[in-house]
Amino acid sequence: MVQQEHKIRLAILGATGNVGRKFLEILEQRNFPISSLKLLASEKSVGKMVQFQGKEYKVELATKNSFKDVDIVLASAGASVSKELAPHAVKAGAVIIDNSSAFRMEQNVPLVVAGVNDHVLKKHKGIIANPNCTTAQLVVPLKALHKLAGLKRVIVSTYQSVSGAGKSAMDELTEQSKNHLSENNYSFKAINRKFAFNVIPHIDTFLEDGYTKEEAKVINESRKILELPDLSITCTAVRVPVYIGHSESVNVELNHPATKEQILKAFKGFPDLEVFDEPSESKYPMAIDIAGTDPVYIGRIREDKSNPNTFNMWIVADNLRIGAALNAVRIAEELLKQNLLKISVV
Amino acid sequence: MVQQEHKIRLAILGATGNVGRKFLEILEQRNFPISSLKLLASEKSVGKMVQFQGKEYKVELATKNSFKDVDIVLASAGASVSKELAPHAVKAGAVIIDNSSAFRMEQNVPLVVAGVNDHVLKKHKGIIANPNCTTAQLVVPLKALHKLAGLKRVIVSTYQSVSGAGKSAMDELTEQSKNHLSENNYSFKAINRKFAFNVIPHIDTFLEDGYTKEEAKVINESRKILELPDLSITCTAVRVPVYIGHSESVNVELNHPATKEQILKAFKGFPDLEVFDEPSESKYPMAIDIAGTDPVYIGRIREDKSNPNTFNMWIVADNLRIGAALNAVRIAEELLKQNLLKISVV
Repeated sequence: MVQQEHKIRLAILGATGNVGRKFLEILEQRNFPISSLKLLASEKSVGKMVQFQGKEYKVELATKNSFKDVDIVLASAGASVSKELAPHAVKAGAVIIDNSSAFRMEQNVPLVVAGVNDHVLKKHKGIIANPNCTTAQLVVPLKALHKLAGLKRVIVSTYQSVSGAGKSAMDELTEQSKNHLSENNYSFKAINRKFAFNVIPHIDTFLEDGYTKEEAKVINESRKILELPDLSITCTAVRVPVYIGHSESVNVELNHPATKEQILKAFKGFPDLEVFDEPSESKYPMAIDIAGTDPVYIGRIREDKSNPNTFNMWIVADNLRIGAALNAVRIAEELLKQNLLKISVV
Repeated sequence: MVQQEHKIRLAILGATGNVGRKFLEILEQRNFPISSLKLLASEKSVGKMVQFQGKEYKVELATKNSFKDVDIVLASAGASVSKELAPHAVKAGAVIIDNSSAFRMEQNVPLVVAGVNDHVLKKHKGIIANPNCTTAQLVVPLKALHKLAGLKRVIVSTYQSVSGAGKSAMDELTEQSKNHLSENNYSFKAINRKFAFNVIPHIDTFLEDGYTKEEAKVINESRKILELPDLSITCTAVRVPVYIGHSESVNVELNHPATKEQILKAFKGFPDLEVFDEPSESKYPMAIDIAGTDPVYIGRIREDKSNPNTFNMWIVADNLRIGAALNAVRIAEELLKQNLLKISVV
């Protein structure tokens, strides 16, 4: 996809987290053309050694001065770190692709899902935002449906894995589950709740209107990415005891009539979207099956006969890949393809 | 609630299953007035001894001739057993309160959630049906909302515990979880899928239109109980790795405007419905907390600002109690109260 003569001086901010490690895995898998690699993290990870393409890299402390001679920064270190460091990366001449919520809703920052709205990349001023993982997988089929028949109303209920809350939450799911099964008492850490063998209708903090920040992100970011600022969309975001893979039950009302056949055709022709929908053979996407893979999967597509032009569907994707690291790497590839970087030709 | 001089000759059909055992627990807790008790089950449970009110009862084989001298049968033995045996129970003079799907949609059979539509009990001809557990908890707040402002459209996504699939599924969740955590291979039994650390958008078998039977039950049974045959309602039914307690994410559009305050007041005044909704203190109902209790819990009540007169909410209840055994016992109590049984006065 990327011409090999354009080699990139890359930095990863938050290199040791759930998404940071996925950045490295995906860069390696896609043979992303790197001439130099800086691994940046907070104090507690400094000095750790990380393997990449058969070479050892030492994790360095992320500071304002970390971005000299860097073309692209892939960042996943949380909103406060991004807010502090992104302006310095831009000042040093880098483009930062940021996985945090820090800049997503800023007017001058393109919020991009590769394959859905790459055309806005050309407006970037050094910072490009990656949406929330739940939004990233949602807008792929929504974009396909909007092109087909126009979106009128969208109602989303999510089933989100604990990896969205970080590596510590994954470890804690194991620990809580073991303790629950052996009937030990246990305390809570990463998520302040019993989440083993439970579902929790609460992700991120509550806003004044009763929605969580997670739900507000899905609503606001979907509208921005789809360029439909008045789209009627609502969301209930729920944590489930799954390690990797977010699932979404989505009811979509279209502006114009469409048949299931037309919808399937639109989905099958859309990049990075896999239809997996054979109810007669009990086939539909499941988190446990798709973890570690790239596409957004869609199944259980069926007409909601109780409302005109409306369909139910079930959308599943690896939240660490399409929802985070993979999308960031694809955006980087697209920047190279569209020649939107000052590239150091080695 | 029931006058003690009216003592009931009771039979329990399916006495050793998940719901059968709950029948006994709830009858004991509510001090239901029993003069005799027959425990009926299939061959594999015959001879088992079961404690009730400090006395031992032997499980007998359920046959066509099991219902002599029985006033009420509480049945939870599956649709095929109910279809075969219910007519014999009625012929023998008993009233059967059936937890299976066998008779729910038959025109002459009242489908009842106690507190929601008790008034239809008087039409019974010997068989009274208990709805699907997912429906039972859903129609409680829906009835309250309908009385307040009329229901226009309802969109349901469920998070259903494995106890709905029987005791074997609960045991298998433990087994699958242990094997998953110790990275052993394992086979599937009760539910033909890996359901530990996974969510499965498939409960009961698939119908030709792409819906599952479970989803069709929620749609059809809700319409019947609410006496709204044309209600616009749809459902996506999903299994989650939770032992007991079904959760539901529900979007409700009302016919007329209502404020959140009016809705809270309507819920608080409705029997068996508990509002648990303090987002600022991170309070909302969760399956793991409410298992073993009677009410339907509701929280996360908030306006869907993207559509007129529409609200999101989160409904949680113990599927073995309100969704099955408790509702059946309440119906039996109501039959006594309304004097709708031939009662053997001891």
